[in-house]
Amino acid sequence: MDFRILSKDPETQARTGLLKLPHGEVKTPVFMPVGTAASVKGIHQNELAVELNVPIILGNTYHIYLRPGIDTIHRAGGLHRFMNWERALLTDSGGYQVFSLTGQRKLTEEGALFQSHIDGSKHLFTPENIVSIQRKIGADIIMAFDECTPFPCDHKYALNSMELTHRWLDRGIKQFLETDPVYDFQQVLFPIVQGSIYPDLRKISAEKIASSGMAGHAIGGLSVGEPEDEMYSMVEIVNSILPENKPRYLMGVGTPVNIIESVALGIDMFDCVIPTRNGRNGMLFTANGIINIKNEKWKDDFSPVDMEGNSFVDTQYSRAYLRHLIISKEMLGAQIASIHNLGFYSWLMQEIRNQIEKGTFRGWKDQMKKKLSKRL
Amino acid sequence: MDFRILSKDPETQARTGLLKLPHGEVKTPVFMPVGTAASVKGIHQNELAVELNVPIILGNTYHIYLRPGIDTIHRAGGLHRFMNWERALLTDSGGYQVFSLTGQRKLTEEGALFQSHIDGSKHLFTPENIVSIQRKIGADIIMAFDECTPFPCDHKYALNSMELTHRWLDRGIKQFLETDPVYDFQQVLFPIVQGSIYPDLRKISAEKIASSGMAGHAIGGLSVGEPEDEMYSMVEIVNSILPENKPRYLMGVGTPVNIIESVALGIDMFDCVIPTRNGRNGMLFTANGIINIKNEKWKDDFSPVDMEGNSFVDTQYSRAYLRHLIISKEMLGAQIASIHNLGFYSWLMQEIRNQIEKGTFRGWKDQMKKKLSKRL
Repeated sequence: MDFRILSKDPETQARTGLLKLPHGEVKTPVFMPVGTAASVKGIHQNELAVELNVPIILGNTYHIYLRPGIDTIHRAGGLHRFMNWERALLTDSGGYQVFSLTGQRKLTEEGALFQSHIDGSKHLFTPENIVSIQRKIGADIIMAFDECTPFPCDHKYALNSMELTHRWLDRGIKQFLETDPVYDFQQVLFPIVQGSIYPDLRKISAEKIASSGMAGHAIGGLSVGEPEDEMYSMVEIVNSILPENKPRYLMGVGTPVNIIESVALGIDMFDCVIPTRNGRNGMLFTANGIINIKNEKWKDDFSPVDMEGNSFVDTQYSRAYLRHLIISKEMLGAQIASIHNLGFYSWLMQEIRNQIEKGTFRGWKDQMKKKLSKRL
Repeated sequence: MDFRILSKDPETQARTGLLKLPHGEVKTPVFMPVGTAASVKGIHQNELAVELNVPIILGNTYHIYLRPGIDTIHRAGGLHRFMNWERALLTDSGGYQVFSLTGQRKLTEEGALFQSHIDGSKHLFTPENIVSIQRKIGADIIMAFDECTPFPCDHKYALNSMELTHRWLDRGIKQFLETDPVYDFQQVLFPIVQGSIYPDLRKISAEKIASSGMAGHAIGGLSVGEPEDEMYSMVEIVNSILPENKPRYLMGVGTPVNIIESVALGIDMFDCVIPTRNGRNGMLFTANGIINIKNEKWKDDFSPVDMEGNSFVDTQYSRAYLRHLIISKEMLGAQIASIHNLGFYSWLMQEIRNQIEKGTFRGWKDQMKKKLSKRL
């Protein structure tokens, strides 16, 4: 992996960069659509690549491990081949899912024992086997196993959890360094800063992660219900410690406004289910604000989904038609809304990069924030 | 509308033809994918047109009438514009849905009073308003209002029902002839032969429908649970009476084998939810037989979905991947299976037309039937 900063905004911490991965080059800041179970819901791989020009997607280790299972992925020659996705991939570590999705789980020094949400079967994730599992999945970027603390969470819990995550990180890095890739390309491991909303813990964690010697760094445990200001303030503290010359990935974020604010704080990578999940429920993001397509006001609006949008769904279908499909729970409604929203996110990231390169990011951001939050 | 027979099979009643409609030319025999609620589930309009080369689809009047409602469709300028489908459209009359979907319905001489399956609201369909509703929907081909008898159904019920359908037909034709199209193209009305599985009734009904003077004829009340041989035998009786020079549409049929057998009996048009609905449940039709993709045997089969298939999904995705998606209830699984199956149906109809034109249909059909029924 190679990461090069291409330009810096003079007024904020925003920067553009180029991330070279075995499966292609990624311009940063970048948004990664979420392909939980080896599929970005409702979207064909060729639509992601050609129509939406997505350079990297995220897969969830927890889901892929449970189904179709690591043996099948391994026999397929890795997740890229299994799902026929030739561009870059990042897999998370499963920590977030184990702690949020499964009813039964038990945390020990060794790792996390949990029951599958699918069939109740018991499994153990450890810092070591999570590396080995992600070796077999074969993403370009893999994540260290961490405990993602809930919100709210008291200082003592957050401290103990962070220390456990740090001990797990040492074990994960050891496993990573002592093992070879399963396929014919190199992978990189990103460690994850934790510490809930406590500045002292975030500082300690950022220092630990910064000293790990890994190729990139992630910030976890945010966007889990805390006020947005707390999130930004944690990101600011952490980014003041994480080295500038490595990519910074803010996990699970976020809305368009969250993204432009976090870019201003020096974040380079994002992933979130919002554009696809909220899209399926009828929420459309546009450069002029948010549309709730279920609203009665769109019933007879036969104008295009988004006159300024640049994916084919924006001009081929009307708002009235999309409203009808979403209300009728027709699959095509979810497909159209998901493509529209991911197309908008692609545009947003491109525009963010343009504005940073032109040195006009700060002013544009303040204007854009108002427009993006508007309810149409 | 213009219908021209292009070739006749010397050994069966099969024929090829060209149906000219306001929204394009349709080569027959043709299969019409079902777009119940103004969408063929899981498939974009451009995929239907460009990828699957579908010349005509079917919309369900009952569903469209209830949601988005006829006023919205009218304001949109008709269903073609509402859903952005530029090729031909056929709408059914709602009779089948009223009698099969709704819990509460009451049949009178006037029409059918029923409750919406969506919100329980009460509505009345009559032979007259069903014509007016389909004028506003604006399909190229519209259907007369009929009672679709269930199976089994005793002779007395079938007789009374058929006579009611015939009286309704007279009223529907009167309404059709006395009204103008709502948009700038002509529509045609197809009457429907009923009579359950009773040869005497099917003969009477076919004679009534043949003498209606309409541009094409449909056969209803079949493929509702009766043995396949009964269905073929009814089709044979009816087709011996319906004039040769007008298109014959067998409603709601069917499997690939049903289609080739019915083509041999002189049917020109088909519609059915099987390729899409069964596809969503993991049943794939191929030229070599039927695949239940949920079967364990495909778990690690990384070969293409259908090596002989001609839609993009056939070569871009593997059987193992499709199995994973269908079992995981991922939308993309339903999308892939639906496109595959409709692609197969398109191929099948093209091949049927080729074989008829070459005069080799009969031998091909007997070979093909065995292959198509095989479980892979």
